[in-house]
Amino acid sequence: MMNSAYRSLHLTASRLINPNPISSSLLHFLPLYSVNASPRRSTPPLRRRNFVTPFSSSSSSLYIPMAGGDDQVHLLEKQFESFRGQLEESAALREQIRAVVMEIESATRLIQANLLLVHQSRPIPEIIEKAKEKMDDLKKFYGRLAEILQKCPGQYYRYHGDWRSETQAVVSQLAFMHWLETGSLLVHTEAEAKLGLNSLEFGLETEDYLTGICFMSNDLPRYVVNRVTAGDYDCPRKVMNFLTDLHAAFRMLNLRNDFLRKKFDSMKYDLRRVEEVYYDVKIRGLISGGDPPPPPQVQDQS
Amino acid sequence: MMNSAYRSLHLTASRLINPNPISSSLLHFLPLYSVNASPRRSTPPLRRRNFVTPFSSSSSSLYIPMAGGDDQVHLLEKQFESFRGQLEESAALREQIRAVVMEIESATRLIQANLLLVHQSRPIPEIIEKAKEKMDDLKKFYGRLAEILQKCPGQYYRYHGDWRSETQAVVSQLAFMHWLETGSLLVHTEAEAKLGLNSLEFGLETEDYLTGICFMSNDLPRYVVNRVTAGDYDCPRKVMNFLTDLHAAFRMLNLRNDFLRKKFDSMKYDLRRVEEVYYDVKIRGLISGGDPPPPPQVQDQS
Amino acid sequence: MMNSAYRSLHLTASRLINPNPISSSLLHFLPLYSVNASPRRSTPPLRRRNFVTPFSSSSSSLYIPMAGGDDQVHLLEKQFESFRGQLEESAALREQIRAVVMEIESATRLIQANLLLVHQSRPIPEIIEKAKEKMDDLKKFYGRLAEILQKCPGQYYRYHGDWRSETQAVVSQLAFMHWLETGSLLVHTEAEAKLGLNSLEFGLETEDYLTGICFMSNDLPRYVVNRVTAGDYDCPRKVMNFLTDLHAAFRMLNLRNDFLRKKFDSMKYDLRRVEEVYYDVKIRGLISGGDPPPPPQVQDQS
Amino acid sequence: MMNSAYRSLHLTASRLINPNPISSSLLHFLPLYSVNASPRRSTPPLRRRNFVTPFSSSSSSLYIPMAGGDDQVHLLEKQFESFRGQLEESAALREQIRAVVMEIESATRLIQANLLLVHQSRPIPEIIEKAKEKMDDLKKFYGRLAEILQKCPGQYYRYHGDWRSETQAVVSQLAFMHWLETGSLLVHTEAEAKLGLNSLEFGLETEDYLTGICFMSNDLPRYVVNRVTAGDYDCPRKVMNFLTDLHAAFRMLNLRNDFLRKKFDSMKYDLRRVEEVYYDVKIRGLISGGDPPPPPQVQDQS
Repeated sequence: MMNSAYRSLHLTASRLINPNPISSSLLHFLPLYSVNASPRRSTPPLRRRNFVTPFSSSSSSLYIPMAGGDDQVHLLEKQFESFRGQLEESAALREQIRAVVMEIESATRLIQANLLLVHQSRPIPEIIEKAKEKMDDLKKFYGRLAEILQKCPGQYYRYHGDWRSETQAVVSQLAFMHWLETGSLLVHTEAEAKLGLNSLEFGLETEDYLTGICFMSNDLPRYVVNRVTAGDYDCPRKVMNFLTDLHAAFRMLNLRNDFLRKKFDSMKYDLRRVEEVYYDVKIRGLISGGDPPPPPQVQDQS
Repeated sequence: MMNSAYRSLHLTASRLINPNPISSSLLHFLPLYSVNASPRRSTPPLRRRNFVTPFSSSSSSLYIPMAGGDDQVHLLEKQFESFRGQLEESAALREQIRAVVMEIESATRLIQANLLLVHQSRPIPEIIEKAKEKMDDLKKFYGRLAEILQKCPGQYYRYHGDWRSETQAVVSQLAFMHWLETGSLLVHTEAEAKLGLNSLEFGLETEDYLTGICFMSNDLPRYVVNRVTAGDYDCPRKVMNFLTDLHAAFRMLNLRNDFLRKKFDSMKYDLRRVEEVYYDVKIRGLISGGDPPPPPQVQDQS
Repeated sequence: MMNSAYRSLHLTASRLINPNPISSSLLHFLPLYSVNASPRRSTPPLRRRNFVTPFSSSSSSLYIPMAGGDDQVHLLEKQFESFRGQLEESAALREQIRAVVMEIESATRLIQANLLLVHQSRPIPEIIEKAKEKMDDLKKFYGRLAEILQKCPGQYYRYHGDWRSETQAVVSQLAFMHWLETGSLLVHTEAEAKLGLNSLEFGLETEDYLTGICFMSNDLPRYVVNRVTAGDYDCPRKVMNFLTDLHAAFRMLNLRNDFLRKKFDSMKYDLRRVEEVYYDVKIRGLISGGDPPPPPQVQDQS
Repeated sequence: MMNSAYRSLHLTASRLINPNPISSSLLHFLPLYSVNASPRRSTPPLRRRNFVTPFSSSSSSLYIPMAGGDDQVHLLEKQFESFRGQLEESAALREQIRAVVMEIESATRLIQANLLLVHQSRPIPEIIEKAKEKMDDLKKFYGRLAEILQKCPGQYYRYHGDWRSETQAVVSQLAFMHWLETGSLLVHTEAEAKLGLNSLEFGLETEDYLTGICFMSNDLPRYVVNRVTAGDYDCPRKVMNFLTDLHAAFRMLNLRNDFLRKKFDSMKYDLRRVEEVYYDVKIRGLISGGDPPPPPQVQDQS
């Protein structure tokens, strides 16, 4: 038993790089001319005449004649039947993924509607509370995605594009909520934990995490503006410090991914806008608890 | 010993879905506030001031104050250092892949130059011979690709796009050579075998195989025309039969992949063109082995 | 009598899904070989030779020979004459629709010119008054559209694209006028009422209503800026509150329609811009009814 | 009872032009300020503060103050809840349609694979027989489509684009099969009958019928070429006559639809190609049963 468990593990493990289910069903072809014995699926058979005419005619002595035309036809049929099965499996999988992704999208819409209330100075604990309830749904949906992907090991990156942008939106919301609660950045592993993702099996792609963080940054200038109009003159400094560090951290990265690079570039403008708001409140002396602006050391002579 | 082998297999196996090496290096973060002990890589440190200011000011009692700003900064730094490492690793991997793909591309260019001689009715065995020599290089290159990918299990599909189109060209050439030699279709597993690919570890993606076959089909009308010009009137029928069966086999598939679907659509025109050439030789009574056209009842007077 | 009314209703009702007038005129064909009796319209006759030659030749005994070639020709002719009639009817209908839509477009241009005066702080009642006069024209034009469509029941969506964008512009203007007058959102049924549309017969498509509302939102930032310039410091808050609620209401919708989704996305930027203007007047203490900014603790020295 | 049946018919009948289910659910809004009594669906309520602030402030005496802010909020909420319901209904309907269309597409693929065998001179009755079996599936699928559309009377053209191209392919196949059997054109009503479509309720759009006929025409040159190579020298004349009449019939139509016009233009090339094949067999005197070419009257002097 141990032996068989070992073997099954070995088989799975050795299929790590391209455990393409397509290929596995083609294993029957490996002993190339012994296909007749293998069980047939009931699909409409190809035309039964010789798949390729033996090239034995006088004018083409260049060609090496084929051994068994009929075996060839069987082989071709079998191969395309197998392909058909694979493509249908893959299409069915995509449909399953699509259904879950639509639910994720729907849940994030509700969460977002909730989070937008921060711009109207509604009490944050209450907002967070409601958003967290929906987050449990998200966790469930990612669990389902992981289950679906579990059926096709090694193919995470094959289907990854199907849930990518939705996941970036989710990260953005999680990170914003986390920042509202703690004033700190939600780290990658925390994001995975909140979504019930196990980085060993079905993880949160780093680039998606980073893109989500950029999306969150895009919302901060608006937040700062609305906090100031609501009388919270201390907010700009806090957000500015947070964004400054975040921006510096991103600058450490050598971004080649076009999309992420562009998103990061937009963070620069977010920071600049927040700095301008901070300047506005500072120059008007509106910051109550902050350091008062130091008296000018040098008089402007003009 | 057995135990440790088992465990290592188990680890690998459990990482099947998204064995993202990025995430694995983040494992150190899991015990969230004990990061200080872990070894540091020598990367430019982030700005050392508090990453986020504790939100303890009067006007924002909504916020939960943060415990230790310094740990937070360490955590953020560590995370982005890790990201930097991952992105650099991934970029380095891409460079390695790119270098091999350029060699593959270079070899296929030489093979193609060789194969084009069939249009000038050069002896096929000689052409095949030379092409096969180069094929050994290709096998070597794919071996290197497989080695590179072995370093990042489960990420075949992450980088797959980097060698995709070159591989489709290779398949097209292999299939054409195989058809010249045997008059039959090179099946998927044969293609893998010729490239030294092991479908269990680093396989030939089915869609790439199918696309390569479509590319081969695109070359057949030209081949038929040139063969007829060279006096081989039997070639159109053979190619027509081959393409008819191939086309029928493809029709069994439910193609949703836009690129492959388009390539397949072009096969219809290849077949139609070959049929027209066959029609030309047939109507002129040029076919040796086929049915002679019935003797004309009325003599052409012109 | 009652019976016949009932029957006529029944006939109309049963034609709900695709009451395609084209098909109805083809009913005569159903008794397939008795077409000769039906009246003929004076259209250029088809070529009179056998439309299809009876496939009775020796080499194609596969074909079922045709009975009467002449009936066939009549049938084909009749069918295409009918098609010609339908296509011409449909083209004529389109021309009629087009003429009305051009009048709608012309009226909205005049209304728009009028509404733009709000940006120059002209008295709103006067602006509204003039616009409303033109609105009566619009009502008349939509009445004509409804009459035209009444002739082809069940085909609202067939021609809907022909007045779609003009109607969205009309909704946008109506909604803006309504907001100027009442400070509230013009609801769907009110919009229909103002255009004399009866949702039971010729209604205002929901997506067109929603798109029109988005268009109105696009004009609000400019309005706010110009009102503030004119000294109306209270306007930004009002518009902000209006847009905030409108934006939240839209977020409840699961928009898949690409065009509407994009338009809605632009509403976010409208809201953000209005918030920034509100921020500007607030931080400068220009708002009369709002909270005055706290007195600066430290005097600005410059 | 009779009365109520009459009324229900009347209601349905009067909704012919745009019986938009969206609008019907908005009927509650018609008595504009009495919405409070109507039942509420349990959807997340909008923010409860006044939807629009009463515009009574000093600086904007231009605005007419609103009567009841709270009623307004209820009204807005209600309206968007209704919209949400409508959009979800419509999306669900689209999903249902999509599922059936995928089955139609799959069935036509099998039929097409079968029909292609005519190019290899397989016995036509056998080919037709098999294709007809699949046609029964198609009939079933169109029945399902009709059922789905029955739920939303008057909206045939709203969703029509979702099954349009698949239906054109179906018509093309039906018409080709019919031509193989009878040598005549499948007329519109016959096509509807074969698909179980009742033109009164869920019909075959004329333009789709015509486009399908053009598609069939596109396949005829290939058929002729292959028939001639198979020794059927009579086929070109038959097809030429058929296409000539069909082309003439189409020319009667005033086509403005861009897509159909283009497809019809391609029919000209089909006809030309068939004429060339006819010329080839004629000039070589290969036509057995046909008229021998008349002896040239005038000698070419060059």
